[in-house]
Amino acid sequence: MYRIVLFFLLISQISVFAQTKQMSLEDAIMGRYTYLNPGSLRGLAWQDDANYTQIKSDSLVAINAKSGDEKCLLTTEELGGIIGASLRYFPACQWLEDGSLLVQTSGAYYIINAAEKKLVYSIELPKEAQNAVFSEQGKWVAFTQGDDLFVALKDGSVKQITGDGGNGIVNGQTVHRNEFGITNGIFISPKGNFIAFYRKDESMVKDYPLVDFMAREAEYTPVKYPMAGMASHHVTLGVYNIETGKTTFLKTGEPFDHFLTNVAWSPDEKNVYMAELNREQNHMQMNCYDAASGEKVKTLFEETADTYVEPLFPIQFSKVNPAEFYYLSRQDGWFHVYKYNTEGKLVQQITKGEWEVTSIIGFDPKEKFLFVEGTQDSPVENHIYKIEVKSGKSTKLSSGEGMHSAMLSPAASYVIDNWNGVEVPRKIALLSTDGKTQRTLFEAENPLADYNMGETKLVTLKTADGKYDLFGRLILPPNFDSSKKYPVVVYVYGGPHSQMVDKSWQYQTRWWQYYMASQGYIAFTMDNRGTNNRGRAFETAVHRQLGIPETEDQMQGVEYLKSLPYVDAERIGVHGWSYGGFMTLNLMTRHPEVFKVGVAGGPVVDWSMYEVMYGERYMDMPQENPEGYEESNMVNHVKDLQGKLMLIHGVQDQTVVMQHSMKFLRECVKQNKPVDFFAYPIHPHNVRGKDRVHLMEKVSQYFFDYL
Amino acid sequence: MYRIVLFFLLISQISVFAQTKQMSLEDAIMGRYTYLNPGSLRGLAWQDDANYTQIKSDSLVAINAKSGDEKCLLTTEELGGIIGASLRYFPACQWLEDGSLLVQTSGAYYIINAAEKKLVYSIELPKEAQNAVFSEQGKWVAFTQGDDLFVALKDGSVKQITGDGGNGIVNGQTVHRNEFGITNGIFISPKGNFIAFYRKDESMVKDYPLVDFMAREAEYTPVKYPMAGMASHHVTLGVYNIETGKTTFLKTGEPFDHFLTNVAWSPDEKNVYMAELNREQNHMQMNCYDAASGEKVKTLFEETADTYVEPLFPIQFSKVNPAEFYYLSRQDGWFHVYKYNTEGKLVQQITKGEWEVTSIIGFDPKEKFLFVEGTQDSPVENHIYKIEVKSGKSTKLSSGEGMHSAMLSPAASYVIDNWNGVEVPRKIALLSTDGKTQRTLFEAENPLADYNMGETKLVTLKTADGKYDLFGRLILPPNFDSSKKYPVVVYVYGGPHSQMVDKSWQYQTRWWQYYMASQGYIAFTMDNRGTNNRGRAFETAVHRQLGIPETEDQMQGVEYLKSLPYVDAERIGVHGWSYGGFMTLNLMTRHPEVFKVGVAGGPVVDWSMYEVMYGERYMDMPQENPEGYEESNMVNHVKDLQGKLMLIHGVQDQTVVMQHSMKFLRECVKQNKPVDFFAYPIHPHNVRGKDRVHLMEKVSQYFFDYL
Repeated sequence: MYRIVLFFLLISQISVFAQTKQMSLEDAIMGRYTYLNPGSLRGLAWQDDANYTQIKSDSLVAINAKSGDEKCLLTTEELGGIIGASLRYFPACQWLEDGSLLVQTSGAYYIINAAEKKLVYSIELPKEAQNAVFSEQGKWVAFTQGDDLFVALKDGSVKQITGDGGNGIVNGQTVHRNEFGITNGIFISPKGNFIAFYRKDESMVKDYPLVDFMAREAEYTPVKYPMAGMASHHVTLGVYNIETGKTTFLKTGEPFDHFLTNVAWSPDEKNVYMAELNREQNHMQMNCYDAASGEKVKTLFEETADTYVEPLFPIQFSKVNPAEFYYLSRQDGWFHVYKYNTEGKLVQQITKGEWEVTSIIGFDPKEKFLFVEGTQDSPVENHIYKIEVKSGKSTKLSSGEGMHSAMLSPAASYVIDNWNGVEVPRKIALLSTDGKTQRTLFEAENPLADYNMGETKLVTLKTADGKYDLFGRLILPPNFDSSKKYPVVVYVYGGPHSQMVDKSWQYQTRWWQYYMASQGYIAFTMDNRGTNNRGRAFETAVHRQLGIPETEDQMQGVEYLKSLPYVDAERIGVHGWSYGGFMTLNLMTRHPEVFKVGVAGGPVVDWSMYEVMYGERYMDMPQENPEGYEESNMVNHVKDLQGKLMLIHGVQDQTVVMQHSMKFLRECVKQNKPVDFFAYPIHPHNVRGKDRVHLMEKVSQYFFDYL
Repeated sequence: MYRIVLFFLLISQISVFAQTKQMSLEDAIMGRYTYLNPGSLRGLAWQDDANYTQIKSDSLVAINAKSGDEKCLLTTEELGGIIGASLRYFPACQWLEDGSLLVQTSGAYYIINAAEKKLVYSIELPKEAQNAVFSEQGKWVAFTQGDDLFVALKDGSVKQITGDGGNGIVNGQTVHRNEFGITNGIFISPKGNFIAFYRKDESMVKDYPLVDFMAREAEYTPVKYPMAGMASHHVTLGVYNIETGKTTFLKTGEPFDHFLTNVAWSPDEKNVYMAELNREQNHMQMNCYDAASGEKVKTLFEETADTYVEPLFPIQFSKVNPAEFYYLSRQDGWFHVYKYNTEGKLVQQITKGEWEVTSIIGFDPKEKFLFVEGTQDSPVENHIYKIEVKSGKSTKLSSGEGMHSAMLSPAASYVIDNWNGVEVPRKIALLSTDGKTQRTLFEAENPLADYNMGETKLVTLKTADGKYDLFGRLILPPNFDSSKKYPVVVYVYGGPHSQMVDKSWQYQTRWWQYYMASQGYIAFTMDNRGTNNRGRAFETAVHRQLGIPETEDQMQGVEYLKSLPYVDAERIGVHGWSYGGFMTLNLMTRHPEVFKVGVAGGPVVDWSMYEVMYGERYMDMPQENPEGYEESNMVNHVKDLQGKLMLIHGVQDQTVVMQHSMKFLRECVKQNKPVDFFAYPIHPHNVRGKDRVHLMEKVSQYFFDYL
């Protein structure tokens, strides 16, 4: 009897739960990348051109690409034995060129012969080591400690490379606030004999006063923050010779506040190449230096623009002809691959057309074929293409609408394609680059299968002048009834280098939007001019006038929304963070007749308080573009504020500093304009981790209360 | 025809406006001390024992106290001629002992013979001069500039007295954060030969990081802020000899973090007297120093307490017997006047009983009678009493329930009584001290006569143990209907040295409470244990346990409110600032079942983040009273928060620093408790001026939205 009852209970539960779960904020925020994240394969890597490896049940397993045959290479226990550590799981690892396996734990690099299950050698790092980079050829690890650069050798010794770190001098770390594609400050030479590194002198940069309120008594913890138009730091590039222990600085000259970007070594280690950009960011020189003497050898070529030049990718030398290299440039208005020789002569433009190469994946050994990711099929998709170098002829390797990401085998026989699409949470496929084989390695289940969710659709609109498509995403509430009127919350970002709507899983929806939909709101998001993957003209339309074209475009979205019979045009709200906070302020003040409620998080209020590299690229200096700065300064628009507006800011924000919100609030108080505010005391530019639930509850509640 | 229409319009306007105006926030905030402030008389002062002066129609007029006869002494134009300046109105002035008139403008002191309409002499000060003090006998002005002390002589020369100011050394300014009755740092000797001054060394005190967000790039603008239990500043007292130009420091000795309070000179200028208090504040010594050598002459007497001793009034020497002085002390539990001799022997306790002398007004020339203000008639009134010194017999001079403030004529023949009462906006009366004459000099009209206001009443309750009366003020909405249910907003302060409810005009109502009443809320305020004018036991009940007895008492008020048939017990809110912010947090977290909505402004959250002098007096050091600090730390009560709570803080707050709100908010975020917050970017501890309208709109709106 008991069993039967239980059985019926189970049945009824299942029928109740199928597509009836409501998405909670906890699900939307914490679940998205944890318990509701689509499954995947762990530790995929190419061992050689015929085999890839994967971590399966805590063992490193090699799989033959052709046959699919599996072979266990190393168990976690075996690996623990080799490196002399008790491991709870198989750590991240990487295959080196010589076929050995690099395993990295906190504090040490282990080079392992997997076939023999033996340690070849190891390199230990001090506990305080950061930014570590391993040289396979040199058999050393370069790293920073504090503001200085060191190198740890396999004999256990550590050599200090710089000694002037501190008091505004920083060695071996990223510079220029990670703009221009810069992510690190150590550049190892191909044969392991040199370490090139950034040296940043920011002693002339003004301190921005941050305060740690969690101390016994609040502590002053300033950071260097160069605001647009103010003194910027000086960066140089040192080259350290491992053998001699000597450092030579490249003679990059004046003016010192230029940008040294995209550092690359020549294969013979004799030269260092950099894309050097003037502070105005409208003139780039691709320069070659003599690594030994630091002398400038030549300027290979230059790129200029009325707006700005933004070098994002270092040159890549040909392995077939060391006098040639490939460069990914937007010089014709779209990111395409070019081949130059070391004289600076353009040999060939390989890819062409009104689409963008988003990444160079690699080449076949003879460099007859180039493999790239790009938008050739659609600006809201990313596919894998095989390009015949000679003809530029393109063959799409990936299939299935969506966003594809490639991992090429060493000799380019195969690609592992890890992708997702609107209704595809994740698929991993093995493709042979000759187009003959395709095998599915993994297909994730839909973690939201049980949730009751409304329709999500892609909307294609036009800019007001009809020149460009605009792509938007409309999310309807669950149990949508087209005869009713629904309020809308627009989620906006809108800044350069972003694309919020594409054909990735669920059109890249932020799940908070699903949460809002579950609460009866229509959720809408659209990419405006200035955003990514649409070519230079689309992006640079916002130059010197941030906020204006973006707002015009967003209003096209609003017009569309208002045209929908089920939209309550009296109840439209907007939320965004950072650039999206700026956009929220723009929309609230430039269209007070439309937006009833807004929540602006970490908003840029005045570009003259934003930093040099990003701010001046898009706005020029305040002294060069006073009208532009005035017009884009949201303080000057407070007078037009009508709706309910809340600003939210992380007290530790070092990106968009708190000063932005403070100046906006001050103006609201001065003009006796109602405004709301919240501050997250220990959070930087973004509120992450579990506190994000608090944040999004606060944002949501504001719409519940007032929209 | 036109005239007739106008006439009717006026009539109808009058009839519409009589008691029908609603109090706006603008009225309540900006009007209270400007266009709705009860009228008064300007520049009242005793010229001699028979005549007082007043500024009337821009002339200084002398009025005979007995006859009321008036005589113009000086017009504004005449005064302008005398001092060589173009004056728009008659400036503040003061009668000196020798009968001359002191007129002070920005930058200069003018000593004038009013009868002859001539300048006797003048003293000019530098523009940067601050804290200026004039010596009639010495004919000089002592002042500070930056952190140093100077004296300007009538020959036009300026002498610098100290030169070590800056870098944490401050000379001639108030110390100990204005606690212990301290308001200034310059103490001139009776004959004008010496200047005693505070020297504060706060170099060992931690910087509290304030930030000026209104700068081009935010600026770090730290202040010295010694938190409870941390290093406190060191104060010494220098004595500068005008003739020799030499400074002697009193040998006040160790430990250096004691408190030097209530500085007084002996009439012969040989000695300086101070009430010196140990850092624990439970042991006061009345010490006498030799001004010439700096040596300590003797300790006259001592006061100790289990809780704290808080000297507030400097000794006042007898003019009849220079070996005797008067001292206002709470040593028997109530503030009373004592006579001591300079040997330290208690000569006589002059006033006695369970009431408090709030001020010594003065004596008759023979010192047979003492004139005081005090609470002998009622703890919620302040009257003027003539006390026979010999017998202690008290005669009340003032009449009319309310708060009286006295100005005694030089030979004590008359008192000018400037007072107000519950229904008396202001009255100014002339009283002869023999009780024979009383004349009304001024009676203010009620500036709120046209306003439609509900009833305001005094409520007398009891503490839970029945030991003490508690006085509250209940304000009913206009057009009150006792058959309806009204929400209540409690306004609370509750800290030491405050009394929010008394028999001053309108029971001292904050007009914001009238505004809330006009919006349909009952407004309530009550003074709890710990507040002023109720004797030591009532005040010190909160010692080492701030928040607990106060909350118990406030809950007596809440019980009373709940007993009223027209109170909606489900809709009770609370608002307070500073100590009242602390109380708001106490009430919201200790009684979440009662308070639905709270707004805590500039709240103390954790007494260990409050400053040494006030914090340690009431709480001892954190290391001495860890349980007390734990229990009174509102961060530890966040877990019990249920209602809607908003914190508001001035970003420039140097009294209750922003760290308090930040730590509370952080804990709310950590525990995922909804909480709201607002920050006033340029405001210190209080939001004053026209921005206060924005503040109180925000506070009010929070109750409108959620209560």
